[in-house]
Amino acid sequence: MEHLKNAWYVAALSTEIEDQGMLSRTILGQSVLLYRKLDGNPVAIRDRCPHRFVPLSMGKRDGDDVVCPYHALRFAPSGQCVHNPHGDGLIPKAAKVQSYPLVERDGFIWLWAGDEALIDPSLIPDYSLLSGGHANSKGYAYMHMQANYEIVVDNIMDLSHVDHVHGPLLNTAGHLSAQQPKVVEEGRSITVRWDWQQDPPMGFFSPFLPQPGAAARHHVTVCWTAPGTMLLTVGAVQNGGRDDDGLLSWDHHLMTPETETSTHYFFGTRRNWLVEDAELNRMKLEGTVHAFTAEDKPIIEAVQREMGTTDLWSLKPVLLTSDPAAVRSRRLLAKLIAAENR
Amino acid sequence: MEHLKNAWYVAALSTEIEDQGMLSRTILGQSVLLYRKLDGNPVAIRDRCPHRFVPLSMGKRDGDDVVCPYHALRFAPSGQCVHNPHGDGLIPKAAKVQSYPLVERDGFIWLWAGDEALIDPSLIPDYSLLSGGHANSKGYAYMHMQANYEIVVDNIMDLSHVDHVHGPLLNTAGHLSAQQPKVVEEGRSITVRWDWQQDPPMGFFSPFLPQPGAAARHHVTVCWTAPGTMLLTVGAVQNGGRDDDGLLSWDHHLMTPETETSTHYFFGTRRNWLVEDAELNRMKLEGTVHAFTAEDKPIIEAVQREMGTTDLWSLKPVLLTSDPAAVRSRRLLAKLIAAENR
Amino acid sequence: MEHLKNAWYVAALSTEIEDQGMLSRTILGQSVLLYRKLDGNPVAIRDRCPHRFVPLSMGKRDGDDVVCPYHALRFAPSGQCVHNPHGDGLIPKAAKVQSYPLVERDGFIWLWAGDEALIDPSLIPDYSLLSGGHANSKGYAYMHMQANYEIVVDNIMDLSHVDHVHGPLLNTAGHLSAQQPKVVEEGRSITVRWDWQQDPPMGFFSPFLPQPGAAARHHVTVCWTAPGTMLLTVGAVQNGGRDDDGLLSWDHHLMTPETETSTHYFFGTRRNWLVEDAELNRMKLEGTVHAFTAEDKPIIEAVQREMGTTDLWSLKPVLLTSDPAAVRSRRLLAKLIAAENR
Repeated sequence: MEHLKNAWYVAALSTEIEDQGMLSRTILGQSVLLYRKLDGNPVAIRDRCPHRFVPLSMGKRDGDDVVCPYHALRFAPSGQCVHNPHGDGLIPKAAKVQSYPLVERDGFIWLWAGDEALIDPSLIPDYSLLSGGHANSKGYAYMHMQANYEIVVDNIMDLSHVDHVHGPLLNTAGHLSAQQPKVVEEGRSITVRWDWQQDPPMGFFSPFLPQPGAAARHHVTVCWTAPGTMLLTVGAVQNGGRDDDGLLSWDHHLMTPETETSTHYFFGTRRNWLVEDAELNRMKLEGTVHAFTAEDKPIIEAVQREMGTTDLWSLKPVLLTSDPAAVRSRRLLAKLIAAENR
Repeated sequence: MEHLKNAWYVAALSTEIEDQGMLSRTILGQSVLLYRKLDGNPVAIRDRCPHRFVPLSMGKRDGDDVVCPYHALRFAPSGQCVHNPHGDGLIPKAAKVQSYPLVERDGFIWLWAGDEALIDPSLIPDYSLLSGGHANSKGYAYMHMQANYEIVVDNIMDLSHVDHVHGPLLNTAGHLSAQQPKVVEEGRSITVRWDWQQDPPMGFFSPFLPQPGAAARHHVTVCWTAPGTMLLTVGAVQNGGRDDDGLLSWDHHLMTPETETSTHYFFGTRRNWLVEDAELNRMKLEGTVHAFTAEDKPIIEAVQREMGTTDLWSLKPVLLTSDPAAVRSRRLLAKLIAAENR
Repeated sequence: MEHLKNAWYVAALSTEIEDQGMLSRTILGQSVLLYRKLDGNPVAIRDRCPHRFVPLSMGKRDGDDVVCPYHALRFAPSGQCVHNPHGDGLIPKAAKVQSYPLVERDGFIWLWAGDEALIDPSLIPDYSLLSGGHANSKGYAYMHMQANYEIVVDNIMDLSHVDHVHGPLLNTAGHLSAQQPKVVEEGRSITVRWDWQQDPPMGFFSPFLPQPGAAARHHVTVCWTAPGTMLLTVGAVQNGGRDDDGLLSWDHHLMTPETETSTHYFFGTRRNWLVEDAELNRMKLEGTVHAFTAEDKPIIEAVQREMGTTDLWSLKPVLLTSDPAAVRSRRLLAKLIAAENR
């Protein structure tokens, strides 16, 4: 599959790999083995022995190394074979697997998919909001979508769908569709902002506003960064306040291609109200994840089935006033990929 | 898939779409949405929004229109987008889906798959026998076959298989195989007639003949009309009577390609004896549908698995004396398709 | 799929086809019908009627013949159509199916997959050990692997995997991996021998040695014969004896390609100790088959999933000192196939 190579992709939530566990995950069409060294640092290596191509994840941990289950070649976190029990024990020069540079930050494990000489940690978006705040004001989730990641990104880059797809919790009562939101491109990012009055407010905010149930100004700022991660700053405020005076939820939606037609969907969220309330925290996370899974997912996956692997543009989609952010993020990504292939 | 374009195909039984229901059905490889307007007239439009390619059948009815579940574009029965809730509400010129001309007749909904300028309702075969007669003398069924429609047509165009495939109800005791039935081509139709003495008679007729269980002359006339519908006039008569003096069953077998390797199989039947007997009607319909499903279907689907998508002729089939009707209907259909592509 | 044509492949265990039974099995990508004539001799014909391509295995036996379930053409063991109930009963010249030469020997039914003019029974490996000995010293099994047969052959041609893959019954405690076993090529065969001291001995032998549980010399000689059958002579002996002084098990592993990515795995075994012990016989067969199924099969099938249908060499496998036998059998087979295609 064609994709941006010199880029960071989320390989896992920090909590998905723990202790002596091994996680095998297909990323960009390749099987990758994720685990933690004894010191806790994460490791990602190609999940395929270079001898007879057995997934190393079927083998065993041995300290910081992994032993292939078939003929017991042992591999270090660097991907280098460090023990060969066969014959004179010499290690063939080619006996190594790809090792992927990782950065663990803000609850995510980021994997560099490109040329090691070009690694640039500054390309990891700043999602440090998730590293601050009370533990009960934050949450993470992993979802899986049987759809190309660009179709999943389109879903969020055109938030007007919230007017139509979502139930009471996230309901926006038609306010977004009427807008022609402003789209700003800067570097590898596209930002789009929606701003509207709503009465009664979204179920998500309503009970926590100063005047519960009364009209409030709502806003969402979506910042997409190539290749496929988005930070949504979602808020509601009453009495003419500014954004920061009101309720704010920071929702991070991070898409990693599994295959050409499936996506790892990582989610991280933080709020600025009742930050110590564990029960609210649980309900808010479960409610939003349920909305994504029960309301967005069936539509996104149906789009995938209809489109197959044909290119979006070749299908000549009709474009609406709410589409520019999605279109521009697709165009910017295509430009970055083309530049890389030149 | 290659097929005759300027032709009528049965999209559904009349009873399959009712009230506010929506039926999504793949026809000739395309997803089609079928429903009825408030006045009861049937509608067929492409089941795929031109904006982001969501199946409209996942959306909601709104009067005679259908609303896309994703961003709420509303489509009229004409396929035209008639409401766009986005931005200034202007409707993009390209915001329409294909609408298929329909004719509802004799309990079937016929869909024109070709060029609208060439619509010709006279090409719909006359199956008006199904519009007459007592309600208890008639019945309909829908079946699905995991096989190309031409393989299913072959099954009926060579009725000698009834000697070998079917159990007591339809048993013909070897009388058909011995025949070299006459085949007549006329316009877009191929007719083949079988005529034989049988003692005892077919289980289907036997108890209802003047002398139950005694020898009777049997006959079947099969009239295939391109691309894939067949009317079988099946009868048994005793005492030297003519066809019309005896028992008659009119069996309509209508094949519509779903994909290259699957078929929608519509069936409609009427008889001329004990026409008010509801229980007999139910048993006759259930019995024949069971025979098609339990006896023909496994064989037809095994043929599909063996043939895959290779062309019949490239496999050089051995032909028997019972094959001419099937062969000529395949050749006539191929000729019509070739003429269309010239 | 590319394969050696002028060669014998095991189509079935002798016990798999009995009495009036019919066995349909895909061999080298083609459906084959196996059955026994009334005199007990086995028959293999293409499982596909030349008229409309129905599997004959869906039909009925009639003496030594098989009758197609669809239009009742009858085929003799020669593959020739011998009865046509249609029309004047003339049998079309092309009405025959391929018949495969068979040799039944040593509990296996061998099928010649190539040119009849080139049949050479001397190419069937000598597995007559299975025809001798007490009934309770022998056993057979059929297994299925979702992997190309060369991947399954690799498994056995590099027995060093036994050190790492297998549990107590077959455990070799790392003794094989250290060896650089001698490989000998002769005609269409490759032989590789492993020889080692083990203390305690393999669970498979330990309780039956003169000094149970005490150190013993172990050995395995693997003889592969193209295209995919292997005889393993496995033994353990104490007190400085020669191979023949000790315990011996003769294990025959015979691989027949089903499709490019699946294999029929036939197994036949005989031992030289406690040859009348039926319970030991049952336990030994069940234990080894369990090891192949529970321990080898998951790894072999994972290799297939990782490799897909890409050629092994194009993946540039790292080779170890235990690989030469597997590599040379692959190279010899490739050479034989290339010679055949010249």
